[in-house]
Amino acid sequence: MEVYLDNNATTMVDPLVYKAMEPFFCHIYGNPNSLHKFGAGTHPKMLESLDHLYDGINAADEDDIIITGNATESNNTVIKGIWIDQILNGTKNHIITSEVEHPAITAVCKFLETQGVSITYLPVNEEGVLEAKQVKEYIKDDTALVSIMWANNETGKLFPIKEIGAICKEAGVAFHTDATQAIGKVPVDVQDCNVNYLSLSAHKFHGPKGIGALYIQKGYSLTPLFHGGEQMGGHRAGTVDVACMVGMGLAMKLAVDNLEYENTEVKRLRDKLENAILEIPETIVIGGKENRTPNTTLISIRGVEGESMLWDLNQKTIGASTGSACASEDLEANPVMNAFGSDSELAHTGVRLSLSRFTTEEQIDYAINVIKNAVSRLREISSSYAYTPKNHNSQL
Amino acid sequence: MEVYLDNNATTMVDPLVYKAMEPFFCHIYGNPNSLHKFGAGTHPKMLESLDHLYDGINAADEDDIIITGNATESNNTVIKGIWIDQILNGTKNHIITSEVEHPAITAVCKFLETQGVSITYLPVNEEGVLEAKQVKEYIKDDTALVSIMWANNETGKLFPIKEIGAICKEAGVAFHTDATQAIGKVPVDVQDCNVNYLSLSAHKFHGPKGIGALYIQKGYSLTPLFHGGEQMGGHRAGTVDVACMVGMGLAMKLAVDNLEYENTEVKRLRDKLENAILEIPETIVIGGKENRTPNTTLISIRGVEGESMLWDLNQKTIGASTGSACASEDLEANPVMNAFGSDSELAHTGVRLSLSRFTTEEQIDYAINVIKNAVSRLREISSSYAYTPKNHNSQL
Repeated sequence: MEVYLDNNATTMVDPLVYKAMEPFFCHIYGNPNSLHKFGAGTHPKMLESLDHLYDGINAADEDDIIITGNATESNNTVIKGIWIDQILNGTKNHIITSEVEHPAITAVCKFLETQGVSITYLPVNEEGVLEAKQVKEYIKDDTALVSIMWANNETGKLFPIKEIGAICKEAGVAFHTDATQAIGKVPVDVQDCNVNYLSLSAHKFHGPKGIGALYIQKGYSLTPLFHGGEQMGGHRAGTVDVACMVGMGLAMKLAVDNLEYENTEVKRLRDKLENAILEIPETIVIGGKENRTPNTTLISIRGVEGESMLWDLNQKTIGASTGSACASEDLEANPVMNAFGSDSELAHTGVRLSLSRFTTEEQIDYAINVIKNAVSRLREISSSYAYTPKNHNSQL
Repeated sequence: MEVYLDNNATTMVDPLVYKAMEPFFCHIYGNPNSLHKFGAGTHPKMLESLDHLYDGINAADEDDIIITGNATESNNTVIKGIWIDQILNGTKNHIITSEVEHPAITAVCKFLETQGVSITYLPVNEEGVLEAKQVKEYIKDDTALVSIMWANNETGKLFPIKEIGAICKEAGVAFHTDATQAIGKVPVDVQDCNVNYLSLSAHKFHGPKGIGALYIQKGYSLTPLFHGGEQMGGHRAGTVDVACMVGMGLAMKLAVDNLEYENTEVKRLRDKLENAILEIPETIVIGGKENRTPNTTLISIRGVEGESMLWDLNQKTIGASTGSACASEDLEANPVMNAFGSDSELAHTGVRLSLSRFTTEEQIDYAINVIKNAVSRLREISSSYAYTPKNHNSQL
């Protein structure tokens, strides 16, 4: 049995999404900017897709949603746009983010530091989240942007976006959120949360890879990351990938339509899997069980190195992760677990299991069995587990 | 009959390419950066695709080819990378380009001018190209980059890339070429031409939209446009669009395999179409017939506004263009025709017809008939044509 439990890394394209994309490769293939019927033939489905995106995050009609290549591009567009528009010209010089953002935020901030920009990386608490008041504390006169993720990719923990949005609005500071891991898992409402910029990526919610979007609230324009043609009203040059845009639109609609299923059935299966693993002694859920996306668990199993567990799971055709796939070639300890202040041994024991609406009960039962056997095997051969005098801190 | 003669704007995905992409949506869907079999399952075809790209432009093994979202991204990566690495820090301050680049070059340069960068836009001659010695003349001590297109998108005219490459190499100035309109039409050899950076876009050679590449010669690294995860060796963050990358790789192989067909059969059909139109009085090929890509003709028909011709063609299900699709919503005169120094009336009479290996003889015969009828009709109702005292300058 094949069991894919790495849906926070990427998802299968929903067959319905694929079917909607199919005509746009070899049949309706015109350039949307062309004036003839081959170009115009792409427009109805593109407009429908935009409608799904607007509806999916409750954007106002006068706001902008630009189509990008992925959330990484969306994030770079916002942060580098702010840099060019407000920092390079000397107006401001400070950005606030968190210690547990995806590399697509952190690495941009690290780059800006090399250019003299001041960045505040807010630490997270023992639950892996920050409190909105921390943002308020660090906003200064020269703060140009606050960028805080909606949901963490490794723990699934949800951040207090509505509270942060209110604080930023009051302070008059632009607020960006990377909602890549939130779409299709929890309701995302940019108006309710006073979000000015929001990034998302289709391949995290059963859309295709290679396409994402950036929401820009009316009045919050940015110097584009891609200068060139007049696509996206001049906000993002480059021929639009029509097939993928159509796929993303439908994927968004399906993600929203399935929110209830995600928060009942997917959550039930996640909890079943998680509770079965927690029956094993000295196992904990990193960040705790509260206030998470319904599909994710990051579990630490004392004495079992994450990489070893992945190997055993892979042998049984189960796909899982030790954290962000985007940094998976990096064998350093998981940065989110480091951010929790975990001891160094614990930091290497995280296994992330992330489900989707395509995960079945049979797959979960199979995974439980495989994981239990793997823990037995790996603990038997683990010198560190045998000799460790410490108890696993179940309060973590 | 449907006749698509706008292949410089975008192309149909080759059905073979589509077939190669198909498994990567709903079956082999893992994140290539994931360590498990779902991720690793994407690797063989990705590596094969990279091989096709390296072979297609004769890149050396030690050079880099990074996968981007389109040629616009590739162009922005090079020019803004040079800006950050060599200009923002005060080392250099000058870029040389041409007056007839695609907006994905020109608009980036215009943006850099707002940031204080000095840009030289080399003019083109009456044939629509520049001579390599013009580049030599303008290279200064503080020149950071020369960026000249391989082939023009509107006329198909080929630029003296090998000579420019030699001049840049001798002067020690980095050389970038946007080869978007050259791939699959003429041989492209980065080593032979001393190219340091080259941009390309799959959807111009029967690959999918939403994917492109940037060739970077060994030793010519750049600050990335997308900071984030470690994809592409840190040169371009973001989950790789596996399906589209596989499609681009095969599309490149097929483009190279079909180069001879392109330069014999496609050229024959283009010439047949062009010569038939030239039988109509007061028609000329903009830039002349020499030294062009084999699929393109930009024809001026005195007294017939390009937009009106497109309308008539569209009524008969023929897709053509007045120039770059990326600026087609802009009703100003075609910038390439302006660059020729054409009179303002002529500048509005260009019609670009661009064929592909899927264009058939029957389609060309049909198009010839439709175009001849359209010219008769439009000239009959054209006040400017009736009253113009000027002869069409057949030397242009």
